[in-house]
Amino acid sequence: MSAPVLAVSRRTRRTPFSPRVEELGVAGYTVYNHMLLATSFRGVEEDYRHLKQHVQLWDVGCERQVELKGPDAFRLTQLMTVRDLSTIRIGQGVYAPLVDVDGGMVNDPVILKLDEDRYWVSVADSDVWLWARGLAHGLGLDVAVFEPDVWPLAVQGPKANDLMAAVFGDVVHDIRFFGFQPLPFKGHDFIVARSGWSKQGGFEIYVDRENLALDLWDTLWEAGQPFNVGPGCPNLIERIEGGLLSYGNDMTLENNPLECNLDRYCNVSGDFDAIGLKAVKRIAGEGVSRKVMGLRVDGDPLPSNVEPWTVHDGSKRVGQVSSLAFSPDFGCNVAFAMLDKGFFSPGQDVRLETPYGERGGVVSELPFPKPEQEQARAS
Amino acid sequence: MSAPVLAVSRRTRRTPFSPRVEELGVAGYTVYNHMLLATSFRGVEEDYRHLKQHVQLWDVGCERQVELKGPDAFRLTQLMTVRDLSTIRIGQGVYAPLVDVDGGMVNDPVILKLDEDRYWVSVADSDVWLWARGLAHGLGLDVAVFEPDVWPLAVQGPKANDLMAAVFGDVVHDIRFFGFQPLPFKGHDFIVARSGWSKQGGFEIYVDRENLALDLWDTLWEAGQPFNVGPGCPNLIERIEGGLLSYGNDMTLENNPLECNLDRYCNVSGDFDAIGLKAVKRIAGEGVSRKVMGLRVDGDPLPSNVEPWTVHDGSKRVGQVSSLAFSPDFGCNVAFAMLDKGFFSPGQDVRLETPYGERGGVVSELPFPKPEQEQARAS
Repeated sequence: MSAPVLAVSRRTRRTPFSPRVEELGVAGYTVYNHMLLATSFRGVEEDYRHLKQHVQLWDVGCERQVELKGPDAFRLTQLMTVRDLSTIRIGQGVYAPLVDVDGGMVNDPVILKLDEDRYWVSVADSDVWLWARGLAHGLGLDVAVFEPDVWPLAVQGPKANDLMAAVFGDVVHDIRFFGFQPLPFKGHDFIVARSGWSKQGGFEIYVDRENLALDLWDTLWEAGQPFNVGPGCPNLIERIEGGLLSYGNDMTLENNPLECNLDRYCNVSGDFDAIGLKAVKRIAGEGVSRKVMGLRVDGDPLPSNVEPWTVHDGSKRVGQVSSLAFSPDFGCNVAFAMLDKGFFSPGQDVRLETPYGERGGVVSELPFPKPEQEQARAS
Repeated sequence: MSAPVLAVSRRTRRTPFSPRVEELGVAGYTVYNHMLLATSFRGVEEDYRHLKQHVQLWDVGCERQVELKGPDAFRLTQLMTVRDLSTIRIGQGVYAPLVDVDGGMVNDPVILKLDEDRYWVSVADSDVWLWARGLAHGLGLDVAVFEPDVWPLAVQGPKANDLMAAVFGDVVHDIRFFGFQPLPFKGHDFIVARSGWSKQGGFEIYVDRENLALDLWDTLWEAGQPFNVGPGCPNLIERIEGGLLSYGNDMTLENNPLECNLDRYCNVSGDFDAIGLKAVKRIAGEGVSRKVMGLRVDGDPLPSNVEPWTVHDGSKRVGQVSSLAFSPDFGCNVAFAMLDKGFFSPGQDVRLETPYGERGGVVSELPFPKPEQEQARAS
């Protein structure tokens, strides 16, 4: 049987960049925030090699913005996250877990402070606007909550600085990690942030003018020719190597942020008004009963999982693998595994049940130490 | 270029029925409520012909249930919909638009009353659990909101009664439209409702036991052999013919329920506590400025649209087509169009801009009158 095609409709929204994505031969799609997101062009492995050497344009229009605007915008934004937002400045973005009253993860967005009374919550795959609207209505807050038409375009890879400078000027070098500033393109100021869902460095341009979208893509494409620019998208292999968890894949509402290694984004000693803070403080006090760890899996390259795979220790179930890919640079299969307490030590041996037979695995810290580092340690 | 495949991951969840759907040759998938939903098996047109003559099993596990349970379950459920729920009984389901404070559609679920303090909101494609949780938290309501593991299995088509009776007994004949009752299968009582997203009649079985799911599918499949049972899924042609709107396709948060022909599910003269009621009363008083109408489109069969297509009257834009398919039984392209006031009269001529050239169209009432009826009128 050939793989089923994705049947596209208005409900699985296209983006202003979709024509270029299609012209450049998108091979796989997923649906993310009710919107199309490419998953590969020349194959996940070839895309991966290119991403780590050159620069790619990514249509990440599916990174929807939930805008909170009005006198209570700060209050509502802070209510939703256990990260203390009191010190962030206009022009700064922060990665911030959204947490429910019982500690469950609602989303893991980047929050951008656009103004004192205006925030963008740049969301992973769940309808955060409904959560925010429900809270605003229930609490009687004076804040507008809506999804503006903004389609981020990411420029990712080691040559992203050069390409962005060629189009926007040397000013891009001054943008700090997760910082952003408005930069002009054909008469319109676009918010340009140093961010993106890879560990190769790069930028995200928050495209809020549909009629300039293809013009911007084409300008970057043209300017990118000397840098061997290519089409790309969030890459499964690269994100696992880099320790980037995916909401819906590696963490869900069933997980709290401490299980997901998001400790440093949770201000558990803080005293501020956030819905999930009490629960996260309690969990921090008790210690987590399971945690996402890296896993190196023995043997030949495995196909990526489409459902969680059980991890056991030879006698009992001790967790599950949520994402897995074969890493050419590491020379083995790498995976994220939510493992029970007792299996948090790098180097521990476990067993993995796969549809292709049982495999051995070794627990790793995250992000995975680079092969060179490991070699240095071993010597 | 060949059509992009859907790249499946844990985030685009499989259902307990996915193995059978794949064995039976699913040709197209979409993602709905973060879950896989088939869109065709033997082609949309062949599936359509089969659905209208025989009986099909549909994996609609993506129809997620949002359970509201506790002392304030009724209050919260009623708050979310402008349909008066005070008179519904245990064992009854109702189609009920969920409406935001400004009148925008949040979802269009079927709400099932399981008990005095327990409801299932069987949702279309948006994260209603986040909306319900936000409201519950903000208002301090005493109600649990969660998505139980329930994967509906639909049995649809003119022979659905016979097939269901063969498996569950003649008691199924007594289930009234949108009514439901628990019926035993291998020692477990499943909720069985007379409902489903086609106009061919049938049932939905709310499968809440993963370990019985394939057994139930196989039993229905076996019992369905005399009835020419086949695999199926919500069918684009059949749903347009039948006037079944799709949330995300034909209506969004930008639309109010009166624009979507849902007047009869909105108790605008009622006096009950619903978030959207004031807005819908106001809109009802003013009259809608646009409305979903049927449209017959001239000429050869058109491919279905993936984005809205503009409708004009020769000089100005008067609306857009949201869904379109060629109907073999009607012998023409049929579509849903959101049209401006002034174009609500069946028989009016409009023009449709398509990527395949301009076409003429004729406004129709919804659901589309059957070809025979039209013939009778014309004579």
